[in-house]
Amino acid sequence: MRFLHETLPQRVRFASGEAAESLKDEIASLGARRVMVIAGAGEGEIAERVTDGLPVVHRHDDVVMHVPVEVAERAREAAAAHDADVLVSIGGGSTTGLAKAVALTTGLPIVAVPTTYAGSEATPVWGLTEGSAKTTGTDRKVLPRAIVYDASLTLTLPAGLSAASGLNAVAHCVDSMWAPRTDPVNQALAAEGVRALRSGLPMVVEAPDALPGREQALYGAYLSALAFASAGSGLHHKICHVLGGMFNLPHAATHAVVLPHVLAFNGSAAPEAENRLAAAFGTDTAGEGLARLRDQLDAPRSLRDLGMPSDGIAPAAEAVVAAAPAGNPSPVTLPAITELLQATWEGAEPR
Amino acid sequence: MRFLHETLPQRVRFASGEAAESLKDEIASLGARRVMVIAGAGEGEIAERVTDGLPVVHRHDDVVMHVPVEVAERAREAAAAHDADVLVSIGGGSTTGLAKAVALTTGLPIVAVPTTYAGSEATPVWGLTEGSAKTTGTDRKVLPRAIVYDASLTLTLPAGLSAASGLNAVAHCVDSMWAPRTDPVNQALAAEGVRALRSGLPMVVEAPDALPGREQALYGAYLSALAFASAGSGLHHKICHVLGGMFNLPHAATHAVVLPHVLAFNGSAAPEAENRLAAAFGTDTAGEGLARLRDQLDAPRSLRDLGMPSDGIAPAAEAVVAAAPAGNPSPVTLPAITELLQATWEGAEPR
Repeated sequence: MRFLHETLPQRVRFASGEAAESLKDEIASLGARRVMVIAGAGEGEIAERVTDGLPVVHRHDDVVMHVPVEVAERAREAAAAHDADVLVSIGGGSTTGLAKAVALTTGLPIVAVPTTYAGSEATPVWGLTEGSAKTTGTDRKVLPRAIVYDASLTLTLPAGLSAASGLNAVAHCVDSMWAPRTDPVNQALAAEGVRALRSGLPMVVEAPDALPGREQALYGAYLSALAFASAGSGLHHKICHVLGGMFNLPHAATHAVVLPHVLAFNGSAAPEAENRLAAAFGTDTAGEGLARLRDQLDAPRSLRDLGMPSDGIAPAAEAVVAAAPAGNPSPVTLPAITELLQATWEGAEPR
Repeated sequence: MRFLHETLPQRVRFASGEAAESLKDEIASLGARRVMVIAGAGEGEIAERVTDGLPVVHRHDDVVMHVPVEVAERAREAAAAHDADVLVSIGGGSTTGLAKAVALTTGLPIVAVPTTYAGSEATPVWGLTEGSAKTTGTDRKVLPRAIVYDASLTLTLPAGLSAASGLNAVAHCVDSMWAPRTDPVNQALAAEGVRALRSGLPMVVEAPDALPGREQALYGAYLSALAFASAGSGLHHKICHVLGGMFNLPHAATHAVVLPHVLAFNGSAAPEAENRLAAAFGTDTAGEGLARLRDQLDAPRSLRDLGMPSDGIAPAAEAVVAAAPAGNPSPVTLPAITELLQATWEGAEPR
């Protein structure tokens, strides 16, 4: 056992239907008096409701996916112009991301109110895009001081999108088991995330308007982000990154298709990870648990169905081998990855 | 699901045999240049070895159990006299506790190098004694900035003491499942602690000089403290506190005797905690797992054997009911606690 684990400071309030009260408490505990609210137009109504009664100096709804630098710049100028002393972000990953872009240069504290399972609120990772180029970095300043989780705000997230986004979170958990900076603490958090997600997501799909499944899914998404940000990208994420870049495949669907194959590939060489995951899934093997969850969520099965050409397998395999993360449990060889991608492309049984 | 969880910032380095290198890295990353080393005479040799090459301005070996205020005062004066900018504590709970007492008034950062399973290094709780009165409190200033775990430093901890101290850590984990501020995050950390302790402690008792068991035990002790500090004292600790105060029973042995009875009492009324614990013990029921561990560690069985008089049961039961923590899963009634204490006194099967 040998690791360096850094635990970052953050308060997490979890209370369904109580976002407004929770937010009030967090703003008070920060001693903030000039609130800048960041929420896209789609979240406008929610944002008004949950920030009612707060000392809001500016409402900023200029939110764009992937946080373009000019959008970030405008938000920073607004924060300065209104002399804000706290940022309250209400929305998904792009909204949290915009608040982080402001915090990065201003040092303003963030209180995040997530409305999706993106998980960005639990990490010190920021991202900005300039044209088609994306820059990301890690800075403690951008980690929200507090998260206000209110599962009732996620009720409008459609079941299909919830399942896709939730499977993404499952992939974060699974890949955290063997990522470059993995450690037992990350693994325990990731296992807890799997436990929550595999119990919550099927409930969300079956009854999207009920809170218990939403709560488990949201809690699981929090843990998946926590574990993943600490452990780093493992083989699964390297593969998805390569495939996404080469063939412009849909992000969430690619994760859903690839994950069982990476789990089968690594699980046999990482018995402790396999045991932790099996226990978290509540099944005899991790693969069995993931297969069951995928069935329940009606997840896509093959890269072919997502539009990847069969002659893409060879170049993709080479790119994956070149990008292989350090310390992957199974040796990342060209024949092994070619076989893995072939099976993923066909939608064959993971092995 | 409804909780407030506060994650506190701390770096944890875990590497057996590398305390000196880890400590060097942590001191460098704090930018500290004037180190005050706090280590009792018993740890003198270890302390010299692991602080070799550091800019030490003072070595303080005036460490006394339970941190008497006059001992704390002398350490604070020494820190000021030597203009220390960091405290390095090397030892068990009393040593860490003394560093915390200095940090409490000076704000100096602490890097803790634990040599026992006390766990104080992972909590923001401080304690001072004045005569026979103990004052405790919680302050973020006293939470060590970094912990350097080196399991080789625990090899000199005798097997019997290791088992007793380790069972104490198990009690922290179990009681965290239903303590007043428990939440799913604490429960996940506590379950991970049980998993590590139940695997490590029998190895320590069987082969006290081998590292793998020591590593698991030390890691488990860290998690137990983390979960317990966040969740607070549950029924088990209230009972032990009452018994310890009334009959002056040995601390660790009392915990070992009482725990299975509280687990049986609460487990049936807290099915999720029961399931988490059973999974962590790797047994069908939590009680079975704890019983097996106690057998392996040859733990004491009855309060009678520890010297508690039988006519103490009635007053102790009344005191426990009066001190019952909020939200205990099973109702804390006088008949129920009397029965529990009777069984614990006799060393009967927990039920």
